[in-house]
Amino acid sequence: DMAVRHYTLDFNLSTAVDSATAVSGLLSIFHEQELTETIHDTDGHGYLATFVGKNGRFVVLRVHSHGLVTVDLQCYEEDDIAQLDNVRECTALSFSLKLPALLRGAKVDRYWPTADGRLIEYDIDKVVYEENSDYQNIKILHSQQYGNILVLDGDINLAESDFPYTQAITGNGKENYAGKEVLILGGGDGGILAELVKQKPKMITMVEISFPELVIDGCKKYMRKTCGDILDNLKGDCYQILIQDCVPLLKKYVQEGRTFDYVINDLTAVPISTSPEEDSTWEFLRLILDLSIQVLHPSGKYFTQGNSANLTEALNLFEEQLGKLSCPVDFRKEVVCVPSYLEQYPFYQVLYL
Amino acid sequence: DMAVRHYTLDFNLSTAVDSATAVSGLLSIFHEQELTETIHDTDGHGYLATFVGKNGRFVVLRVHSHGLVTVDLQCYEEDDIAQLDNVRECTALSFSLKLPALLRGAKVDRYWPTADGRLIEYDIDKVVYEENSDYQNIKILHSQQYGNILVLDGDINLAESDFPYTQAITGNGKENYAGKEVLILGGGDGGILAELVKQKPKMITMVEISFPELVIDGCKKYMRKTCGDILDNLKGDCYQILIQDCVPLLKKYVQEGRTFDYVINDLTAVPISTSPEEDSTWEFLRLILDLSIQVLHPSGKYFTQGNSANLTEALNLFEEQLGKLSCPVDFRKEVVCVPSYLEQYPFYQVLYL
Repeated sequence: DMAVRHYTLDFNLSTAVDSATAVSGLLSIFHEQELTETIHDTDGHGYLATFVGKNGRFVVLRVHSHGLVTVDLQCYEEDDIAQLDNVRECTALSFSLKLPALLRGAKVDRYWPTADGRLIEYDIDKVVYEENSDYQNIKILHSQQYGNILVLDGDINLAESDFPYTQAITGNGKENYAGKEVLILGGGDGGILAELVKQKPKMITMVEISFPELVIDGCKKYMRKTCGDILDNLKGDCYQILIQDCVPLLKKYVQEGRTFDYVINDLTAVPISTSPEEDSTWEFLRLILDLSIQVLHPSGKYFTQGNSANLTEALNLFEEQLGKLSCPVDFRKEVVCVPSYLEQYPFYQVLYL
Repeated sequence: DMAVRHYTLDFNLSTAVDSATAVSGLLSIFHEQELTETIHDTDGHGYLATFVGKNGRFVVLRVHSHGLVTVDLQCYEEDDIAQLDNVRECTALSFSLKLPALLRGAKVDRYWPTADGRLIEYDIDKVVYEENSDYQNIKILHSQQYGNILVLDGDINLAESDFPYTQAITGNGKENYAGKEVLILGGGDGGILAELVKQKPKMITMVEISFPELVIDGCKKYMRKTCGDILDNLKGDCYQILIQDCVPLLKKYVQEGRTFDYVINDLTAVPISTSPEEDSTWEFLRLILDLSIQVLHPSGKYFTQGNSANLTEALNLFEEQLGKLSCPVDFRKEVVCVPSYLEQYPFYQVLYL
């Protein structure tokens, strides 16, 4: 695993205590390191020099005309980076080596941007499971602090630390599921099911499309802090797991006039795209929402996740959809901190007006 | 504000569907963009070319001998980056433009690494307060999702979203503070004080060293979701705020034999350094801990924060210190998710054996 460490060091000449010294100090360090210098013509956009050294080390020093100095240092992961201490020392007055290095090309990817597009490094050290189903890429990654993390198509889905997610999407402990009929859409990690069976419901029906059952297979092996032993059997005293597409099933329930006290939609987050008229994810969301409300008992509740609290436009659109259903509904929203998400996350509770 | 956007694009030749096409595709895009190419001699460490273009654009293309391809693209924040769409297109088969760009040299810094050293980008858009006291640099930054964030000496301290912090360091709602004597060490953001006065304690004494009172001044203006109006007056019906060093005060209390039902240490996290015998922060921690236990009523409780759950060595050392106090104590630990911290964080409860 020959990953590359990429250090970035930035400071402003205007705020540097002794800027001339800082830049010439950097240059003399690079020369000492026997780096081969190339000065580039930037056509009036400041000073730009690149340096190539032993062991594949590579440095870019750039002094922008408005005073920003950027330094990039790249070396192989296991290279001795004593040179960096020198860099830090000579520029100690004006800045510190603040940003952790980017680790590029490592076997296990540590960077999983948030839904609102920020760069986030996780403490991921191992891929414990990876499979491709017809529908998606399924990964389970290990993190020291979050336990195993289920990642579907590159999106952090749920970690073993994320009981607050399960709590939020089941009503934050304020509901009584005893004796109730519950429908879970999705939920293949088993977290919701494992939690709700403890409350002795009449029957929980969980519908998970994953076929072959790769999400369930991975989770029952590697997410046991989330699902316990509930996924070991597809049927129990008060639950059944149906491996099928939920849309035809929901349509059948509507035709039969069957209703549920709780419908929990754990299928997908609110789409990030803000073109609800064109986007097929929005169309799918509306379809599921409308069918779900039709199978909801008049005094029942529908729970679902939102998306990053920062995606205000997408969340507003979702709330607009709630106003366009075949029957009028009311909703409540609660922002929750799901440990592994690293962004604030609203959850919705929908009920008949 | 001429910040630089720095895009990184990495893929592996071994996993690329058509790797030769990907690299030559990249090259032809760079040539089309009228970038001036320099090929560098890497002394056997693969292919390395740099490209300088109009508007100060700068590209590094590197093909490492073990098959890793890294591409760096830098341009000014407001530059048209249509070229990136081309890059994305021509390499669509082998990788996607996954990592958000690093924003370098921006006026407001968005990167605040975690205590365990990971790179984290916050949604920070504004500096609302900045002062330097004799003791520390004090900043209050605005985040869309976390509200205002207090940053002391570059460490994220508390955000307006972080009620879970206040809850954790006061016993997670399981304590009854009515009629009790409480000592708060630190706590200049006012969160703990504002929460506990609601419970009608006999008297809360809060000791905050910040002089001049810059932390308190900043928080009472910009952290009102945390402190309400409690910091508007240094004295109230059941509380007093003393602006002084807590060490001489604790020593005086010990001499007088004064005790408290609760001592809440909100001064500092467990030091990251793992040389407790040499480090002055550890020495300070031990001193405060020992004095605090001496002013604790025999049936009282001492609450404090730990640090990142990933700093296991530092946390173990802290727990060892608890075994070396002048009187034997027991402790409990609870890991909490504080919204703005972006890492799991243990809190401690210490009581007499």
